[in-house]
Amino acid sequence: MAFWFNSDRERGRVFAEAFARELPDLNFVMDIERVDSGDIRYLLTWTAPSDLDRFKNLEIVFSIGAGVDQFRLETLPPGVKLVRMVEDGIVRMMQEYVTLAVLALHRNLKVYLGQQSEGRWQALPARQAADCRIGVLGLGMLGQSVIERLMPFGFPLSGWSRSPRQIDGVRCHHGAESLASFLGETDILVCLLPLTEETRGILDPRLFSALPPGASLIHVGRGAQLDHDALIDALDAGHLSGAVIDVTEPEPLPSEHPFWRHPQIMLTPHIASVTQPETAARSVIENIKRHRAGLDPIGLVDRSRGY
Amino acid sequence: MAFWFNSDRERGRVFAEAFARELPDLNFVMDIERVDSGDIRYLLTWTAPSDLDRFKNLEIVFSIGAGVDQFRLETLPPGVKLVRMVEDGIVRMMQEYVTLAVLALHRNLKVYLGQQSEGRWQALPARQAADCRIGVLGLGMLGQSVIERLMPFGFPLSGWSRSPRQIDGVRCHHGAESLASFLGETDILVCLLPLTEETRGILDPRLFSALPPGASLIHVGRGAQLDHDALIDALDAGHLSGAVIDVTEPEPLPSEHPFWRHPQIMLTPHIASVTQPETAARSVIENIKRHRAGLDPIGLVDRSRGY
Repeated sequence: MAFWFNSDRERGRVFAEAFARELPDLNFVMDIERVDSGDIRYLLTWTAPSDLDRFKNLEIVFSIGAGVDQFRLETLPPGVKLVRMVEDGIVRMMQEYVTLAVLALHRNLKVYLGQQSEGRWQALPARQAADCRIGVLGLGMLGQSVIERLMPFGFPLSGWSRSPRQIDGVRCHHGAESLASFLGETDILVCLLPLTEETRGILDPRLFSALPPGASLIHVGRGAQLDHDALIDALDAGHLSGAVIDVTEPEPLPSEHPFWRHPQIMLTPHIASVTQPETAARSVIENIKRHRAGLDPIGLVDRSRGY
Repeated sequence: MAFWFNSDRERGRVFAEAFARELPDLNFVMDIERVDSGDIRYLLTWTAPSDLDRFKNLEIVFSIGAGVDQFRLETLPPGVKLVRMVEDGIVRMMQEYVTLAVLALHRNLKVYLGQQSEGRWQALPARQAADCRIGVLGLGMLGQSVIERLMPFGFPLSGWSRSPRQIDGVRCHHGAESLASFLGETDILVCLLPLTEETRGILDPRLFSALPPGASLIHVGRGAQLDHDALIDALDAGHLSGAVIDVTEPEPLPSEHPFWRHPQIMLTPHIASVTQPETAARSVIENIKRHRAGLDPIGLVDRSRGY
């Protein structure tokens, strides 16, 4: 019985150690050529290998990332479970990044850094947290964790999700018909949606126009959700005041892309949150133990929803 | 009986409204020429007027700011109480600013923005919060409030103050003899000390050399606490990795000053925290009521300590 670790070797060493300790009966494999494909019960990978069918006894595919949009769900054998990465390291990094981005927008950091480069010492009018409404698109594990960090600052908080949610202290909206009213009350929009056919291109001209004038965007979902031209247009028209972008389509951005030098965009190279091997190994081990005990793994993907 | 509001008129209007509602017996005065100096019992101001002696019945001087180093304490009549501004707005803004600065340093924001301007898409190694020790110099109201916001992120926290403090979850040091050991365990140093003769110039070469290599500084105390050349030297020698500076001596900085263009310095024009008129008016009114009831005002300055 074997676990195939199909990712980089540096992370693999951390996993191998934890597996030897916690699941000594499992053969932990990094070189797939050395084992019989029938032995593989579990696979950790970023995308599905094209010859997945030959692993006849495969039970679970673990995604190395928090999203599973890089898998073509319909090509996975029907009996195989697909599991998103739900681990403490990803959650903490996302909490840090979004809090940083919210405070940077709220406190005009990009403007102040621009003034610094021009040698200008000038205070801008300060907005109080109570007057800066944060709206989170996507209320899964990451969305909820981010809200938890923002709450103590006193920002009015709201959220939108596909299906109904209840979170203390948060105005929760759901469904397509309530999206516009949610957006109309959002000064800083945080996109933490999974990429599905419904969310592809969701950050488009219509969505931006539903935000109040002066609103800003933090995009930490998936690159393909954002219409780049629409964002540039909304910023240049003065309707939006700023954006923090961590994910793009494609990645890396081509060198002539306008995001690189736009004065109102802070761009980072998909670093908001990355899987941390120590905590990820613990999470995968825990899920294998759950699976063996007849429980659903945490982060099990519902194929009909796509996440 | 009168209250002299010696600050800008826009703030004054907010105060006047609150005073009319809460302390209708007090004459709220912005034009001092129009009243008999003997009527003035309370004064709100940034610095003491030179002719303070003529206000024979003055009981309390309220500072419009959180610090009182701009007062020459020895020139205040002995019977007059001096009160720092302790109000919710100042506290909240400082929590925002320091959290923003800590996360910006922790997540290499300045480096990423530099890469953005060069069109470079490159992830840097990520440090976990548990490996980034925050040390707060000064554990007064502001220092403690800032720690409260940083704690949920999982940073190891320590603090240093003149006299002993106990704060749950924080390694508290006190006194000159323990400063070096506190600094030796601090990756991001936050200076929130009041300006006194003891703290003038405290951020000097010796202090920087006591920090571990790669440490960084957030300076939100007072400008005169920082030796500018020492900071530049420590950054350029590679001993410190970055700094976020909100206060300088003098302010504004001269146009040729090296802070403006230093790649590892984020400079803001003394905007970390400013007194908010609504909450400040509530705080001053509350303190007048306390004083009238025979209680010490909140924020009463101990003249022997200087804060």
